[in-house]
Amino acid sequence: MTIQRYNPQKILCDATEYNGIVYTAGQVATDLSQDVRGQTEQVLKAIDEVLAQAGTAKSKILSASIWLSDIRNREHMNKVWLAWVDPDNLPARATVEAKLADPRMLVEIAVICAK
Amino acid sequence: MTIQRYNPQKILCDATEYNGIVYTAGQVATDLSQDVRGQTEQVLKAIDEVLAQAGTAKSKILSASIWLSDIRNREHMNKVWLAWVDPDNLPARATVEAKLADPRMLVEIAVICAK
Amino acid sequence: MTIQRYNPQKILCDATEYNGIVYTAGQVATDLSQDVRGQTEQVLKAIDEVLAQAGTAKSKILSASIWLSDIRNREHMNKVWLAWVDPDNLPARATVEAKLADPRMLVEIAVICAK
Repeated sequence: MTIQRYNPQKILCDATEYNGIVYTAGQVATDLSQDVRGQTEQVLKAIDEVLAQAGTAKSKILSASIWLSDIRNREHMNKVWLAWVDPDNLPARATVEAKLADPRMLVEIAVICAK
Repeated sequence: MTIQRYNPQKILCDATEYNGIVYTAGQVATDLSQDVRGQTEQVLKAIDEVLAQAGTAKSKILSASIWLSDIRNREHMNKVWLAWVDPDNLPARATVEAKLADPRMLVEIAVICAK
Repeated sequence: MTIQRYNPQKILCDATEYNGIVYTAGQVATDLSQDVRGQTEQVLKAIDEVLAQAGTAKSKILSASIWLSDIRNREHMNKVWLAWVDPDNLPARATVEAKLADPRMLVEIAVICAK
């Protein structure tokens, strides 16, 4: 079995794939001027894109790790999440507070997804 | 191969299973009036229950992620962990501090477990 | 399929292996007097060692979780990471801030690695 690597950059790649499982990097927004809802939309779109590239989709997500720079933004993030996630195929999830790489980053999400 | 999903709720499920691996959501206590020892006991009981539901058990845990709202509670959490974990089948583990969804939540644990 | 467990200690082991995947514990430096660069070097060396013990290597890392006690140390950590990581086999990665078990610990890293 080989390892697939998607969008290798300088220090990491956007996702790896091995034995039918895709592991994404922590995705963050690119337009950091947006609020937590806008940033969550961007992050989930980035996840959609990298999963599509790997030949899979959100309906096969097994587990999601979510970091919020301020846990009080959880309900705002959850509203966007709820509009996005496949209600018939809900993943396991853990959401905690953590400062992110840039102080303007409000949310980061990584997923483990079946193929 | 199909994906099993245990206890789907509104935005997530308690655990997913794919290709012989169970991924639990971050489990937290339900009685948040308890101290970190009591909450850790509740969390580990919740993990026991969801693993049992998925047809596996703590002796097959591969990796545990532990978040403490105050890292200084680590020794208290560890005492409860030590009484619970299978000494002949210790998992890999990472424990860091993070604020959790509710300010009264003192500990959250997610595991990846073989079946 | 059996589960392999490497370096079991009192409450956890350094790595588990199941179905061709190695899950390491969060690795930290042993000489905590060193700065973030020195500690990152120690941590990555510890990861090299446990992966070697499990019969694999950094070129097969699928995903890395990195916690920094101060996210502003990210560039220092990244310099050491960049000198270490296999540029032809970059993993997915998520890096967030979190207080660690000992206030002198500046960086902790766990990886999921194919065999």
